[in-house]
Amino acid sequence: MTDQATSTIVPVKLGDRSYDILIGGGLIERAGQEIVSRAGKTMRAAIVSDETVAGLHLERLQAGLTAAGIESTPVVVAPGEQSKCFATLETVTNAILAARLERGDIVIAFGGGVIGDLAGFAAGIARRGMGFVQIPTSLLAQVDSSVGGKTGINTAHGKNLVGVFYQPQLVLADTDVLNTLSLREFRAGYAEVAKYGLIDRPDFFAWLEANWRGIFDGGPERTQAIAIACQSKADVVERDEFEMGDRALLNLGHTFGHALETATKYDSSRLVHGEGVSIGMVLAHQFSAKMNLASPDDALRVEKHLRDVGLPVSINEIQGQLPPAEKLMEYIAQDKKVTRGTLTFILTRGIGQSFIAKDVPPSAVLSFLKEKHPA
Amino acid sequence: MTDQATSTIVPVKLGDRSYDILIGGGLIERAGQEIVSRAGKTMRAAIVSDETVAGLHLERLQAGLTAAGIESTPVVVAPGEQSKCFATLETVTNAILAARLERGDIVIAFGGGVIGDLAGFAAGIARRGMGFVQIPTSLLAQVDSSVGGKTGINTAHGKNLVGVFYQPQLVLADTDVLNTLSLREFRAGYAEVAKYGLIDRPDFFAWLEANWRGIFDGGPERTQAIAIACQSKADVVERDEFEMGDRALLNLGHTFGHALETATKYDSSRLVHGEGVSIGMVLAHQFSAKMNLASPDDALRVEKHLRDVGLPVSINEIQGQLPPAEKLMEYIAQDKKVTRGTLTFILTRGIGQSFIAKDVPPSAVLSFLKEKHPA
Repeated sequence: MTDQATSTIVPVKLGDRSYDILIGGGLIERAGQEIVSRAGKTMRAAIVSDETVAGLHLERLQAGLTAAGIESTPVVVAPGEQSKCFATLETVTNAILAARLERGDIVIAFGGGVIGDLAGFAAGIARRGMGFVQIPTSLLAQVDSSVGGKTGINTAHGKNLVGVFYQPQLVLADTDVLNTLSLREFRAGYAEVAKYGLIDRPDFFAWLEANWRGIFDGGPERTQAIAIACQSKADVVERDEFEMGDRALLNLGHTFGHALETATKYDSSRLVHGEGVSIGMVLAHQFSAKMNLASPDDALRVEKHLRDVGLPVSINEIQGQLPPAEKLMEYIAQDKKVTRGTLTFILTRGIGQSFIAKDVPPSAVLSFLKEKHPA
Repeated sequence: MTDQATSTIVPVKLGDRSYDILIGGGLIERAGQEIVSRAGKTMRAAIVSDETVAGLHLERLQAGLTAAGIESTPVVVAPGEQSKCFATLETVTNAILAARLERGDIVIAFGGGVIGDLAGFAAGIARRGMGFVQIPTSLLAQVDSSVGGKTGINTAHGKNLVGVFYQPQLVLADTDVLNTLSLREFRAGYAEVAKYGLIDRPDFFAWLEANWRGIFDGGPERTQAIAIACQSKADVVERDEFEMGDRALLNLGHTFGHALETATKYDSSRLVHGEGVSIGMVLAHQFSAKMNLASPDDALRVEKHLRDVGLPVSINEIQGQLPPAEKLMEYIAQDKKVTRGTLTFILTRGIGQSFIAKDVPPSAVLSFLKEKHPA
């Protein structure tokens, strides 16, 4: 555990919805004092978490909150994507109201991306908006879900199609808690870290190539990488909070990735989100090279680095049967980033030079997919 | 039916969430052209309505939309407060997604306050925010729910405790449609019209005393009264969109009123919302007089006018048994406008001179209630 002096602060500047992300060791224990000192008052809290995270870390969080004068009520749901549904949203929202929390009290999201999305949505609708603090416990949640204010649940019509934009007042990214993640889960989060280098920070990508082992080992590089990733996402979100334009850059690797997640029926034993993004980013670079937008060497470099850290980099690394290229193409066309039939892809002109391409011919994508995934 | 030339426009100025309220005859038929001409494009629409309103008016609305190039899908729910629940919210939200509406398409709330609250909430969360147009069909919804952006549903913990602030892009208040309301429902809406005079527009209250018959009869006074009521509410909401202060003035008569609604278990055969507000406004003026804040003559004047239009003005006009004053006092203390035990009341120094009183002694309220409602 590191001490307070080593916490790094990333400010997210969104006018009257601005907030800070604190990154460093020991933040779970210190959460109470950080919240109270910034709010200038004590309050009550509901801690929304899942059984796994609560079992490992809830006691320490509650002890620190109590010490700071914050009375807290845990609201614990089943782990996994299936908790992102209307029924669990209703349960969580009612638990917040049953705890008699008022608008100035806080909902704490304490878990990975699923908990952040679910608790943030509940915080945004209970009493038409409660105080909201995120304590993300996965690398993916720390670098992705903790910035941007997107919350939501899934429906039969697709993932994340119901939700609100709701910004937290504070995010505490405890770098120690990541030591309890499986290597596979850590790697999956790392794919999103690397993404920010590939979007518009070529120097960061080069730094990751040289320093990734320190990030995995919990060295000071971990805090630095998370801070740069959060700052990168904050830069994009500050330009486009409500996803009218530039924010689409964050979908680099996600159009291919989502199609692969759909193809594996979101079976996490076969593919988790970050792995889909890893393969998707390699595909996006390869496709850009095929379209003569970028050098093939850049695609090779991306592929090498992601393979080095242990991430899958090609479709045929996915276990089990996959539907043919034509079917993958259908999933791409169904993706929510499609507007009135026009295919929008994030393509690149090289490492750190991604851009939004709105005029990608579906036929070119299909023939590329057939090469990469022959029937 | 009046023609387009007589429509009155009330602009609601909320920065990039600003919108217009159009008030006049024939707006249901003209909805399609008004929407398209303002949006500068056609789009698709989901029309959220209840069985009663849909049975009376849906066909005309859809015909006008189709003529303007807007393809629409009706989403019809059961009438009444019980539709403001999570289950119906899920049904409506899924129906919007099933209709394959995109973020630039619109959800139309076509009904009274229940439909406005439910459809607005669904519009605010489907795809994290769809286009939203309100066509309120009750007087209450036209002067109250159509301004302010509050949406929501009820839970076991209370009314309207779950929802979002979500502003429409356009409100069409068709004054002809009010002719299909029952006299009781029209009167209940009128209580909210009179409320704006009592909050801060003494001249408007005097005008209502002289002109209320024209409003009930559908004369030009009706459009004028709705416009002034909407403008009055817009003035308050523009000062305090998220209810941090001044907006509480809109609760004049509501603290007593809600307690009476709770006491009658929201049985609309005994008391509807506007009737509770009518009695509540009289009580607020009487209590202010008792506290030596206002002249007893003002309380008498309010009582006389509301009785003239046919509204109930005292607790003992409510049919059936009511719990004792002590119990009413408990309901008041449970009201969501109570912050950390402090009683917040809207009191008055006279007609049109309401103010937020945060330091009202509960003992004084109880002894007043015992006078007005002896066991």
